[in-house]
Amino acid sequence: MPDDVASPTADQLRLYDQVAGHIARLVEQGTLRPGDRIPSVRRMSGQMSVSLSTVTHAYRLLESRGLIEARPKSGYFVRDTAIRVPPPPKASRSNIRPLRVNVSQLSRRLHDVLASPEVIKLGAVVPDVELLPMQRINRLLMQTLQRFPEMGHRYDIPMGHAPLRHEIARRMIDAGAEVAPDEIVTTTGASEAVYLALHAALRPGDTVAVESPSYFGILEKLETTGIRAIEVACDPEVGVDVDAIERLAQEGRIQGAVVVANFNNPLGCRMPDDAKRRLVEVMCQHQLPLIEDDIFGELHFDSGMRPKALKAFDRDGFVLYCSSFSKTISPGLRVGWCAPGVYQDRFVQAKIAINPAGSIAMQAAAAKYLETAGYDLHLRRLRRTLHERTRKVASSVYEYFPEETRATAPQGGQVLWVELPRGFDSVQLFEEAAQRNISVAPGVLFSPGDRFRNFVRLNCAIQSSERVEQAIIELGRLAKRQLTT
Amino acid sequence: MPDDVASPTADQLRLYDQVAGHIARLVEQGTLRPGDRIPSVRRMSGQMSVSLSTVTHAYRLLESRGLIEARPKSGYFVRDTAIRVPPPPKASRSNIRPLRVNVSQLSRRLHDVLASPEVIKLGAVVPDVELLPMQRINRLLMQTLQRFPEMGHRYDIPMGHAPLRHEIARRMIDAGAEVAPDEIVTTTGASEAVYLALHAALRPGDTVAVESPSYFGILEKLETTGIRAIEVACDPEVGVDVDAIERLAQEGRIQGAVVVANFNNPLGCRMPDDAKRRLVEVMCQHQLPLIEDDIFGELHFDSGMRPKALKAFDRDGFVLYCSSFSKTISPGLRVGWCAPGVYQDRFVQAKIAINPAGSIAMQAAAAKYLETAGYDLHLRRLRRTLHERTRKVASSVYEYFPEETRATAPQGGQVLWVELPRGFDSVQLFEEAAQRNISVAPGVLFSPGDRFRNFVRLNCAIQSSERVEQAIIELGRLAKRQLTT
Repeated sequence: MPDDVASPTADQLRLYDQVAGHIARLVEQGTLRPGDRIPSVRRMSGQMSVSLSTVTHAYRLLESRGLIEARPKSGYFVRDTAIRVPPPPKASRSNIRPLRVNVSQLSRRLHDVLASPEVIKLGAVVPDVELLPMQRINRLLMQTLQRFPEMGHRYDIPMGHAPLRHEIARRMIDAGAEVAPDEIVTTTGASEAVYLALHAALRPGDTVAVESPSYFGILEKLETTGIRAIEVACDPEVGVDVDAIERLAQEGRIQGAVVVANFNNPLGCRMPDDAKRRLVEVMCQHQLPLIEDDIFGELHFDSGMRPKALKAFDRDGFVLYCSSFSKTISPGLRVGWCAPGVYQDRFVQAKIAINPAGSIAMQAAAAKYLETAGYDLHLRRLRRTLHERTRKVASSVYEYFPEETRATAPQGGQVLWVELPRGFDSVQLFEEAAQRNISVAPGVLFSPGDRFRNFVRLNCAIQSSERVEQAIIELGRLAKRQLTT
Repeated sequence: MPDDVASPTADQLRLYDQVAGHIARLVEQGTLRPGDRIPSVRRMSGQMSVSLSTVTHAYRLLESRGLIEARPKSGYFVRDTAIRVPPPPKASRSNIRPLRVNVSQLSRRLHDVLASPEVIKLGAVVPDVELLPMQRINRLLMQTLQRFPEMGHRYDIPMGHAPLRHEIARRMIDAGAEVAPDEIVTTTGASEAVYLALHAALRPGDTVAVESPSYFGILEKLETTGIRAIEVACDPEVGVDVDAIERLAQEGRIQGAVVVANFNNPLGCRMPDDAKRRLVEVMCQHQLPLIEDDIFGELHFDSGMRPKALKAFDRDGFVLYCSSFSKTISPGLRVGWCAPGVYQDRFVQAKIAINPAGSIAMQAAAAKYLETAGYDLHLRRLRRTLHERTRKVASSVYEYFPEETRATAPQGGQVLWVELPRGFDSVQLFEEAAQRNISVAPGVLFSPGDRFRNFVRLNCAIQSSERVEQAIIELGRLAKRQLTT
């Protein structure tokens, strides 16, 4: 792996942030105004006594956050459209007490609200169909049916459709993971992959480390399998606290971990490579399963390569890598997969017992699509759009939510994690908003320990229409009303 | 429910068998030869002192078994093609000891053998694609994609696609079950439906009554959920022993039951209506879940209406009815469903946690197909073909297997359950056959208690080609060799 494509270390990231923060403050203070040229890379490097490469990275970061823009042969300028967004929430803390999960009732309620076709789906993580290559997928599916009319009517083998597994293996090279097609098992979406991974690698009564906050889909699976969770501190910039997980493993308090290293849902943060490497080393050293949900791995907002997966550092096979195409190609494909490492036999046995066959037609269409060059082009567009929409939602939150509101500056994915003042009840907001056909995901869903009651998660991938802005205005109004009564 | 479409009682069935057996013996002894006219209904009624209706039923039974045929205005004749089939196996016995299930390793081995494209799939329960309405389904799927290009790319709601649930509710009227669309939850196949039903209604450590023999797909699910099984006596003609289940329920030895009332896999038997009613009453009285797998319910061999489901007798909601279209329309649809009765909330919660969304496109195509009249016509053809092929396989088994071989005379479904002499090892046969690219399902798979080692299950739905007959000849040769060494 050449150096120039390696991800930055935590130290480097901190340095980039220092430089970027300096520029951002100059803009905030009005020293630099929209349209102004900002100091050249060379000049800033001298000013702040950092390398040219560090400044370059920092400027790219600011560019990806939409604060500045590069103009060919002229340098970097403050964007005319520079938008103001809320400051980020603070990092969470660890709590070493294993907790029984109990989120399914509220999750069911959220699903019920989302089932209404009229509701604005700020509470889900659904990509706007307009952003998906649906015409292309439909055509590929029709071609498959016409050319191989019988193929889609057979039972699939438990490992899944071989041509798709080949394409997935090819794509996983970009994530730094060398996995053979025979080490991949396809599933009906990432959700089933994570469930089967838990089923294969852990037992009821076990305890796993989870990020705090953690996607409620993962917490529900823990609840349904009778696995307990320990909430581990998570920084909205660099992700989960690996030292804390190491201590838990050393003390024998956990039997595994479930981590979304690339763009934690809801934080949108990305673990630096050295943290990823250390986490995998810790888990392998203690021979504990590390379930990785990488469903957002290809939806990074910077212009570089996609971030590495935890699986990239897995020499001993203790990482069960799970993903799907539901956020990148189409949720309708129902195609996900797992590279279960040393747990492969038990994973396949669980799949056979629970849901042995996937749809061959859908898998074949997905494989065809991945073969073409169109996927990378589509991803580039999708990332840009998701990034823009996320910034737009953050800007609306800044404008319409109560003054003390904080929000993440996600590095990828498609959600915004919004913190309201302490004492705010997002479940109340959820119910009040539901009556107005607006859905939000209340923060308590993301914790087994009743944390984050004053947070909401907002989906940014839906149509960036006036209706969405109206919804955010309405949410802000409801939030303000709650805070003043 | 008028009397004339009610299913016969066990006593009536015994009477039919008596009359039918009398005629069959006359044919076997050569008293009646192919082409001979058999005694008229009136005459036989007098001879055997039974009602006209009993003789009519018995003759229909013989007709459905292919021994005689009706010629318009002339009466019944011994068929020219009258084939000889092995005598049926005896009923199994109950064993009230709860057993931990342990079939998944052998099942995995069977799946591995079946994964080879060259292997003759006598060991699976796959319908020959030639028997399926695949062109029609492909066209409907393409029409759906063209007319509603976006529909298939959304996340489905947890309950499943509403138009499909409506069509399923309509079809379930034929099974005698009045279930509203909102009491139906679609799943990815019947396999997932049964798994979710177990997950919703039972806990690890619970014990359920199962038929002996019982489909290994069900046993695997018990194994993976940590539920134990009690094997209950099963008659190859009338199914499971309801008295035995009643005693187990009374004594508090079981927390539920899983029953395939229509065409037990592998026996192919059908429970009479009064036994079904009694079984449901017993379970409801003790408030125990009764999981019904009715995947073969529409594949009856007689010319009457489809048999009633257990669900038809369920007034209190303790039956979790599971089925799919994998054996009737296409395994490739991956569309099944459950009507979970009083367990619906827990069923939906389990679905949300494990695999919340199905394919809308596939469900929409299935719904469109069910709307058309073509499905019933297709089913009539399919039943006739499955019945013919089942008889053909039975005839080949009679001809080529060791002399003492017994085999079921299935009343529906698509498999034959073949009993070899005591001491025969069907796992050895399975391995020897696998080396010759022939798959069979060894009998031990169908029992948690190592029963049925001298049985094999044969799939009869695959192409009735010379290659299949060659495979049966080869299996017979291997079986004879094992018995003589």
